[in-house]
Amino acid sequence: MTKIKRVAIVGGTHGNEFTGVYLIKKFEKDPALIQRPSFQTLTLLGNPRAFEERRRYIEKDLNRCFLKQDLQDTTLSSYEDTRAKNIQQLLVPKGNSQVDVIMDLHSTTTNMGLSIILQNKHPFLLNLGAYLSSVNPLVKVSCPASDKESSFLRSLCELGFVIEVGPVAQSVLSAEWFQKTEELVCTILNYLEASNQGTVPQSPSTVTVYLITSNVDYPRNERGEIQAMIHPRLQFRDYQPLHPGDPMFLTFDGQDIPYTGESTVYPIFINEAAYYEKGIAMSFTERQEILLSSNNLMEM
Amino acid sequence: MTKIKRVAIVGGTHGNEFTGVYLIKKFEKDPALIQRPSFQTLTLLGNPRAFEERRRYIEKDLNRCFLKQDLQDTTLSSYEDTRAKNIQQLLVPKGNSQVDVIMDLHSTTTNMGLSIILQNKHPFLLNLGAYLSSVNPLVKVSCPASDKESSFLRSLCELGFVIEVGPVAQSVLSAEWFQKTEELVCTILNYLEASNQGTVPQSPSTVTVYLITSNVDYPRNERGEIQAMIHPRLQFRDYQPLHPGDPMFLTFDGQDIPYTGESTVYPIFINEAAYYEKGIAMSFTERQEILLSSNNLMEM
Repeated sequence: MTKIKRVAIVGGTHGNEFTGVYLIKKFEKDPALIQRPSFQTLTLLGNPRAFEERRRYIEKDLNRCFLKQDLQDTTLSSYEDTRAKNIQQLLVPKGNSQVDVIMDLHSTTTNMGLSIILQNKHPFLLNLGAYLSSVNPLVKVSCPASDKESSFLRSLCELGFVIEVGPVAQSVLSAEWFQKTEELVCTILNYLEASNQGTVPQSPSTVTVYLITSNVDYPRNERGEIQAMIHPRLQFRDYQPLHPGDPMFLTFDGQDIPYTGESTVYPIFINEAAYYEKGIAMSFTERQEILLSSNNLMEM
Repeated sequence: MTKIKRVAIVGGTHGNEFTGVYLIKKFEKDPALIQRPSFQTLTLLGNPRAFEERRRYIEKDLNRCFLKQDLQDTTLSSYEDTRAKNIQQLLVPKGNSQVDVIMDLHSTTTNMGLSIILQNKHPFLLNLGAYLSSVNPLVKVSCPASDKESSFLRSLCELGFVIEVGPVAQSVLSAEWFQKTEELVCTILNYLEASNQGTVPQSPSTVTVYLITSNVDYPRNERGEIQAMIHPRLQFRDYQPLHPGDPMFLTFDGQDIPYTGESTVYPIFINEAAYYEKGIAMSFTERQEILLSSNNLMEM
């Protein structure tokens, strides 16, 4: 069975998401917390300059700089493009020193609780997600519906995923989310150790995965100005069903704008501060029960 | 009796506090909402460049640029220093066209609900605060304890105050707070109109005011790095009593740090995102019942 040899924990890929930054600082001060007998654990502060300035990024979103073609493009030389190339060198250099697992710690202004966003539907990741949501019902698992190439840091290796916690405001350190995230990271490291030892606990036979199918923008006028807000009855209802006809937005004059789709969806990232500039008011997901296959790494 | 002739509503003094920005946009589109028979109402977007960039400010905090000596200092030429001088020209030009009342719309990541922060303890402002908290028990009134000169925009006229609403994340538009703030602004305008008409409703005989006495920083090491977080039992408990011995901070290792003062205080601005750089973890207030005197403007 293939074993995990190196694991990377990344925090502060966005400089104003403090949970990950301060966890990385804690782990670097006390590495024993994340060491396990059968693999090496690396830590990385993703965007130190952005953290110093308490901003998401300096020039462009670091977590959109990891397309293969962009990493190879030497003409891309912004601070974040350069940083992305450095991170690639650190985590996945050519040869056998590359990491097998990446967990990238993020926070969100939305009510996504403890979310695990998988890079793909690899059986190992699905089993990990199934285990985590079985031991903690607050854990939700999501994944892009399509297999198109990703520009996220987590895509640097096949077993990459994001831990997304919230709601917490940007540039705020929340003790509650700091502690919950630390506990989740430790549970994951223990699971990886058990996997290497062949003692992985029994997972359920299925896992609920929220497949991200599309993004929805705010209603805007011809100048791109927002014309309506997330409806108060939708705010903070991430992962809850949105049925055709349910209110989705509220205009500044108090008019409801309903969801006009034909099938029930499960929105996430509802009113994420960082996504206004990306034209995303929320992401729609479909809820799917996925039957689990092998619990080990044989298929890697 | 002195009458109010001009009122200014300012929003977006901080570019990432969206409630005020979008209310100003709404009022500018439909001025009838804020017009009243006996006075003129002006609107002003405080820091338009910062709003475009979804940041609190471009070079320095605009809401700390209004010290008299700084407004007169022609060597201060940052974007915000220049903007402050322009705002002074617009709102309080020499002569009789200056505004009598300034309400400056802010939002906060802290649980301050609907807060009115008065520039001073002028009887007119105290009566307004008493009225607002009597018609809506969610309204809290606070005020600096000392009379030292202020660098806030609201200090441009004697009857200046801030409306501070939250918790809401920076760079997020919250329908709930948008609607609550709009309702509060309209109630205030109606009160001012009634004051001009001599038909001000009866206020209670006292008002509870939270007097801001001091600021408290996070525990930091010699390099200025934060060593502890707001304690989960204090988070979101703005305006609640903090007794000697109550937990105030939590270290990253999970150790409680208690409040060691000798008297009960009522912290506000607990874990405000924008105040990390200012060295403020919270502001302590003393709760005081103030006996109200005249309900009119005779003392102006």
